[in-house]
Amino acid sequence: VSVLSSAIIVYRLPWTWKCSKLLMKFIHAGLNTIAMILAIVSMVAVFDYHNASNIPNMYSLHSWIGLTAVIFYSLQLFLGFAVFLLPFAPVRLRAALMPIHIYSGLLIFATVIASALMGITEKLIFSLQNPAYKESPPEAIFVNCLGLLIVIFGALVLWMASRPHWRRPPEELPKAPRPNGGTSEGTEAESTMTDCSNADKPDVDFNSEAARKRNLKLDEAGQRSTM
Amino acid sequence: VSVLSSAIIVYRLPWTWKCSKLLMKFIHAGLNTIAMILAIVSMVAVFDYHNASNIPNMYSLHSWIGLTAVIFYSLQLFLGFAVFLLPFAPVRLRAALMPIHIYSGLLIFATVIASALMGITEKLIFSLQNPAYKESPPEAIFVNCLGLLIVIFGALVLWMASRPHWRRPPEELPKAPRPNGGTSEGTEAESTMTDCSNADKPDVDFNSEAARKRNLKLDEAGQRSTM
Repeated sequence: VSVLSSAIIVYRLPWTWKCSKLLMKFIHAGLNTIAMILAIVSMVAVFDYHNASNIPNMYSLHSWIGLTAVIFYSLQLFLGFAVFLLPFAPVRLRAALMPIHIYSGLLIFATVIASALMGITEKLIFSLQNPAYKESPPEAIFVNCLGLLIVIFGALVLWMASRPHWRRPPEELPKAPRPNGGTSEGTEAESTMTDCSNADKPDVDFNSEAARKRNLKLDEAGQRSTM
Repeated sequence: VSVLSSAIIVYRLPWTWKCSKLLMKFIHAGLNTIAMILAIVSMVAVFDYHNASNIPNMYSLHSWIGLTAVIFYSLQLFLGFAVFLLPFAPVRLRAALMPIHIYSGLLIFATVIASALMGITEKLIFSLQNPAYKESPPEAIFVNCLGLLIVIFGALVLWMASRPHWRRPPEELPKAPRPNGGTSEGTEAESTMTDCSNADKPDVDFNSEAARKRNLKLDEAGQRSTM
């Protein structure tokens, strides 16, 4: 969950706004790939444990919702890779899919949290026997607190991810004419700079009020394909 | 949950955009009050049932998260009433609190769904004994499907509530000069019309592209205090 949430908020860190969009996309995709691998490893572990202990698989609501979330997560990862990372999709398609990509990402995140809370509930009921969960032994209180902290953590991530003024400002090419004669072609013009050094663009106004305003304006025109 | 979600999406129904903002606020507040009363009735029922059956109260993560959600919900209701319904709060305060009001409302909604799923999980484990939940009797499958439907339902409500172009366009007074000489005082000027009859403003462009554009423009200027 923590890798997943760092993947979600990676565009929301103002100090990364000076890094190239392409680098940030790679980081976003990489963190999500790590989270996916961890999810698969955990599922294999669960199935192995169930089979070894003669517990049926996939009978609980926790497992149904958890597996649904993982399936949608893999779809999200595949589509995100195909549409936003590979250079083939046209800007219009990216712009149309971006709100869905964002909504699905946050929904999957919330569903994973709900699924974790159900898993914790199951585990507490099954594992605490003498004293039982009902008797509120210290373990029960401790794990309940953990569950509350997961909810608070999820709420903070969703807050960060949904504040419009914490969005990364759109990419802009330097205003000076470039050797190849190109001018700014809008937000999707990928810069080839993939490091985060300041020296490259000393006068770029990242993290400024002006950048935010531009951000909102482009948003209004529906021209931004990524946030 | 269904009353709560109708309270959430009540501003998102284009056919209500011709009703006065004040009427819609009353409906939003009224539906939330009904949902709060239902929540209190259910909690009383749960405590009575636990006491009658000698089951301890408030031991489970489900109960902790559920009670937290209800407490925040009552705070949300009280603050919403004091700030957005009573006519005393200045527009600046309303504008500052509105994003928090919206975020908290949606977060409480999502938390209530998570809490419901945990409650369903508990109930299935405790109630299904012979055959047990593990054996996947028809009741278990049926209730699992119900849980999945709750997730889908919540996802739809959150989708509707988070689409910018499904927002209610801001209130506008008719352009013709009025008897009392007042002109449009911005978005917070409450119309006294509290019915939804078309005859009042036959030429108002609700649900139009122009209204949406105005909507976004005002949004950009940060002048809209409610959505």
